[in-house]
Amino acid sequence: MDQKYTLENIEELFNFIENKQYRNLKDAIVDWNEADIAELIEKVAEEYGNEKAVLLFRLLSKDVASDVFAFLPTYVQADIVNVMSDVEVKNILEDLYVDDAVDLIEELPANVVKRVLKNATSQTRATINQFLKYPDNSAGSIMTNEYLAIKKTLTVQQTFDYIRSNGQDMETIYTLFVTDKQRHLEGIVTVKDLLMNPYETVVEDIMDPNVIYAVTTDDQEDVADQFSKYGLVTMPVVDSENRMVGIVTVDDVVDVMEDEATEDIEKMAAILPTEKPYLKTSVFNTWKSRIPWLLLLMISATFTGQIITSFEDALATCVVLTAFIPMLMDTGGNSGSQASVTIIRALSLGDIEFKDIFKVIWKEFRVSIVCAITLATLNFGKIMLIDRLLFNNTDVTVFIAFVVCLAMVFTIIVAKFVGCTLPMLAQKIGLDPAVMASPFITTIVDAISLLIYFGIAKWLLNI
Amino acid sequence: MDQKYTLENIEELFNFIENKQYRNLKDAIVDWNEADIAELIEKVAEEYGNEKAVLLFRLLSKDVASDVFAFLPTYVQADIVNVMSDVEVKNILEDLYVDDAVDLIEELPANVVKRVLKNATSQTRATINQFLKYPDNSAGSIMTNEYLAIKKTLTVQQTFDYIRSNGQDMETIYTLFVTDKQRHLEGIVTVKDLLMNPYETVVEDIMDPNVIYAVTTDDQEDVADQFSKYGLVTMPVVDSENRMVGIVTVDDVVDVMEDEATEDIEKMAAILPTEKPYLKTSVFNTWKSRIPWLLLLMISATFTGQIITSFEDALATCVVLTAFIPMLMDTGGNSGSQASVTIIRALSLGDIEFKDIFKVIWKEFRVSIVCAITLATLNFGKIMLIDRLLFNNTDVTVFIAFVVCLAMVFTIIVAKFVGCTLPMLAQKIGLDPAVMASPFITTIVDAISLLIYFGIAKWLLNI
Repeated sequence: MDQKYTLENIEELFNFIENKQYRNLKDAIVDWNEADIAELIEKVAEEYGNEKAVLLFRLLSKDVASDVFAFLPTYVQADIVNVMSDVEVKNILEDLYVDDAVDLIEELPANVVKRVLKNATSQTRATINQFLKYPDNSAGSIMTNEYLAIKKTLTVQQTFDYIRSNGQDMETIYTLFVTDKQRHLEGIVTVKDLLMNPYETVVEDIMDPNVIYAVTTDDQEDVADQFSKYGLVTMPVVDSENRMVGIVTVDDVVDVMEDEATEDIEKMAAILPTEKPYLKTSVFNTWKSRIPWLLLLMISATFTGQIITSFEDALATCVVLTAFIPMLMDTGGNSGSQASVTIIRALSLGDIEFKDIFKVIWKEFRVSIVCAITLATLNFGKIMLIDRLLFNNTDVTVFIAFVVCLAMVFTIIVAKFVGCTLPMLAQKIGLDPAVMASPFITTIVDAISLLIYFGIAKWLLNI
Repeated sequence: MDQKYTLENIEELFNFIENKQYRNLKDAIVDWNEADIAELIEKVAEEYGNEKAVLLFRLLSKDVASDVFAFLPTYVQADIVNVMSDVEVKNILEDLYVDDAVDLIEELPANVVKRVLKNATSQTRATINQFLKYPDNSAGSIMTNEYLAIKKTLTVQQTFDYIRSNGQDMETIYTLFVTDKQRHLEGIVTVKDLLMNPYETVVEDIMDPNVIYAVTTDDQEDVADQFSKYGLVTMPVVDSENRMVGIVTVDDVVDVMEDEATEDIEKMAAILPTEKPYLKTSVFNTWKSRIPWLLLLMISATFTGQIITSFEDALATCVVLTAFIPMLMDTGGNSGSQASVTIIRALSLGDIEFKDIFKVIWKEFRVSIVCAITLATLNFGKIMLIDRLLFNNTDVTVFIAFVVCLAMVFTIIVAKFVGCTLPMLAQKIGLDPAVMASPFITTIVDAISLLIYFGIAKWLLNI
């Protein structure tokens, strides 16, 4: 299992390329896993360009080559296809599972798509064209059609024979889908079921008729949730007329989960979703994904400015109040975003639903009370000890400290309330709760905390 | 496939419970998937207490009961075990896969653990005790020992016979692990390989000797990354002496990925990781997970207070400057957190490494320039049109607007720089980059943006 050359000492492999010792390179990677070879090709494309990557690709045996190609990220596939010959493209396309082929086609520029589809067999072309019609992020868009369907009248022995003669190019052979003449799904049977029963048993007697399935138009995130809930490794997909048209496999679901987590995290940081890895995204595209929220949040900060302006006279009388504005705003923002992020995640994991809103508010209220008392007490001590004694700032009186801490208590309570309710309301009206995360909450809580602070100051200090 | 009673009309099932019509309840759920029954039991426990949940559990046939139990969240399992009889506990424990049994044991209070282990067979007890020793979040802690190991001298036919007689209770039978007498891993062979070759072929000739494996002490997150990279459904785990001791299966990896994403998101919102679902966590535990960062960030906001205090005289001369503090701080904070969250996610997906730091800084620098120019230009327009003309605030001069916008440009550039470098440095020194997310960056950027703002104001306005 130990190899002389690995991705850890990639420089030596690069040496082979620079010295054109392709025979040595081929020998070095002969025992590698396909996923590792794909990573090597990706790095070669980065370092030496697509032509060298294709050259390396050509060193592989035909079997290995198509597996390696399937492991490459789609944007690298698209780059490589650009510099491949028509025959090479045709071979690869025929060997790819249809879900991977469709992903590739969607990434290619129109003129290359034309060339690629021209070179495909008419059957492949028809399948790809059909699969291209499924909406983005739907079950249809991540499914593949390489599965085994059988009739319920087969025996275990006949089923094994069927698998032996038809299973070679299937994405999974461990689950067999039992369908009738109209391709309606009647049940599933696993190879484990087959192995645990005598050879003469009929499939109908051992199949499981209660199948968890998806419809082509279902959201891929819901499909992923089903996989996780039921512990599935594969799931059949049916069309609107209940005919089986494909399967989703767990490896695609793992990718979906990763993408959806990235998208949630991006939304929480006020970034529009991006498609490519960080270093592959152009400066312009990164700018495009970040500027809309920055702009919106900047404009909405006009309110905080207005609030301060309207209290300008009070602030002029008691300038020391200004020093505590950032601390109050930050504490409010942090408290609010803790609540909102917790709720957003709980909603997305299905731990809570809209009907739990009063339970959530009641819980956040109690948490905010304890947090507020802890923070305000310690803050009072901090102000008196550090700001007043240590820094010798005589403007900071006990009364000022009291005003700041009282404002802090109310700010935290309101911030937690806003933080927990907005994501739930967002989901209720059909928005993604993730947009109600930290930056958005912060902007709202900033305005609220200033109003509370100045309100209390005016009232207690008579300014 | 259509059932009269589902989780959608759970109220009717609750009626059966309230009217003690347990026979009807049993009939209603007879065809349900085990995962759905588990969800029902969880809801019954919530609504009517653990006794009723156990009552429902006892309605299930023995086979179904253990599968259903495995689908329950660990904290519900622990609650139910508390009110079960010794015999029931014993049966369940023997039927659980060892990874699930270990999770359960870890959740139970000490006195219940004693009772449970007393009731287990000595072999189960020994296995559980051994598995309990693996560190939290290690490959050892998520693996199970229900796998099939074979010798390489077997033929395909002999292997099938072996599976037929030993495969019933295995977590997976589709991958067979080829080991020598000392249990060293020599290769793997899949049921697909077996099915695609003649019955008389010897395993040695068709096994794959290049196995991706984990060591018991490997981090579970690394194991999950391997599953995703190589598209695996199962992975063998070896001990420090290279002997095979267990397997990790893809369903556990899906759970790990979900947990790790939750943990990352919590860290990014300055929350310490929590174990249980939101509504199951006590107010005290929620408080405990949120207060440390709130405190730290509140204390560190002392700096912003000090900065404002030291510019108090300048602010008194030109109070209008105060109105733009929140907007500048927020824009800086949002810009910084966009960069930091993007980098944290890219690090966690393996898209970038520490050696890319200069590429990253260069990219963020260009993005920040474009963002800064766009925002500053629009902000200048906004200040002149809204703040000056619309709100008729004559203190807002062109010169003030220029100072604010210049401060904004520098703030955004510095914020993006801080936001992209801190997570990378954190990883370099062995910290989790996720702690360098929005709240932390905001606190740093707040201080920096104030220094820039007041510095520019003092210099240009001569105050």
